[in-house]
Amino acid sequence: MRGGTFITVEGGDGSGKTTLIHSLALKLQQTGHEVLITREPGGSPIAEAIRAVILSKENTAMDARTEALLYAAARRQHLAEKVFPALQRGVDVLCDRFVDSSLVYQGYGRGLGLDAVWDINRFATEGCMPDLTIYLDLDPEIGLKRIQNNRDREMDRLDLESLAFHRRVREAYLLVAEQFKERIVTIDASVSKEEIAAQAWTLVEGKLKL
Amino acid sequence: MRGGTFITVEGGDGSGKTTLIHSLALKLQQTGHEVLITREPGGSPIAEAIRAVILSKENTAMDARTEALLYAAARRQHLAEKVFPALQRGVDVLCDRFVDSSLVYQGYGRGLGLDAVWDINRFATEGCMPDLTIYLDLDPEIGLKRIQNNRDREMDRLDLESLAFHRRVREAYLLVAEQFKERIVTIDASVSKEEIAAQAWTLVEGKLKL
Repeated sequence: MRGGTFITVEGGDGSGKTTLIHSLALKLQQTGHEVLITREPGGSPIAEAIRAVILSKENTAMDARTEALLYAAARRQHLAEKVFPALQRGVDVLCDRFVDSSLVYQGYGRGLGLDAVWDINRFATEGCMPDLTIYLDLDPEIGLKRIQNNRDREMDRLDLESLAFHRRVREAYLLVAEQFKERIVTIDASVSKEEIAAQAWTLVEGKLKL
Repeated sequence: MRGGTFITVEGGDGSGKTTLIHSLALKLQQTGHEVLITREPGGSPIAEAIRAVILSKENTAMDARTEALLYAAARRQHLAEKVFPALQRGVDVLCDRFVDSSLVYQGYGRGLGLDAVWDINRFATEGCMPDLTIYLDLDPEIGLKRIQNNRDREMDRLDLESLAFHRRVREAYLLVAEQFKERIVTIDASVSKEEIAAQAWTLVEGKLKL
């Protein structure tokens, strides 16, 4: 049983996830809701320790399946320690990236397959999925330019390689959004941040457990 | 494709796993086989780091599903770094505890359910299961006495609690052995270690890829 609403925001780099989350949090608070803004590992000491193993530069021999299991383990612990208790207390949870990032980056990016990564994440979430996931869809060329914003130069070879990677990420996100269309809503993130926030708020209002 | 034979040994504390593994290794070497004796995390630095997170005394808030995912992650890395390369080189691998220990201790012991723990371990093993698993079945009262051997006193309250736990472990092992009877062979471990070794060797000879 949960009293709060669980919302996750997904999207490539530069798509505006952080800005949107803070805008939604403000509006939720203005309508009297208590809000938890979080992202994995979210300050859980165990999840942080798991994350440290994933990110250690010494661990270059890490197998892709080991990595996917570790992400699922950190996710589970963040859910158990932070998200579940908040939802149970009636707090709305806004989480920056969640299961769909694993589907995209491990399932497609590492080639493990969507179904396999979905299975271990079902184990990790115990079926506790977001009430709503907002996917901010953006041409990665625009996203990368937003990040580089003040760097006043042409794209170099590394930027172009990065662009190809981010294009694959976008394709994967669109496939995942199609597969879970009852939960994931795609917003065109090429419009202004005010417009994104307004569209997202309409979606959130529709999901609010009042 | 693997050239070596993959054998795992399971059983409660005091059932004689270590003694049996060294006996089998000797016989395999005498018949010209190269043998790797191992147990998880098996000296893989990444698997050791994962194990350290599981066993850290500071991590008392660890969720049972987090723990199961971490065991699966350490298992995967040990497979990828140690077991797969050995089998591919034609080395026989003798592993002290494997997937079945997770089924018993996490699936039954922690109440996560056999199917759920099996699913994440299927992901971890990528279908690379042992050619043969020997389960050493023993009344835990005998096993605990073997461990306590030189302690000359009656069982106390803690020993009796421990006994109840080990009885549940034995029940779980018997259920798992029944479920995977095409792979797991149960040996009565109340007989002499020579007799156990002889029975086990007959099984191994039947599985050897010569």
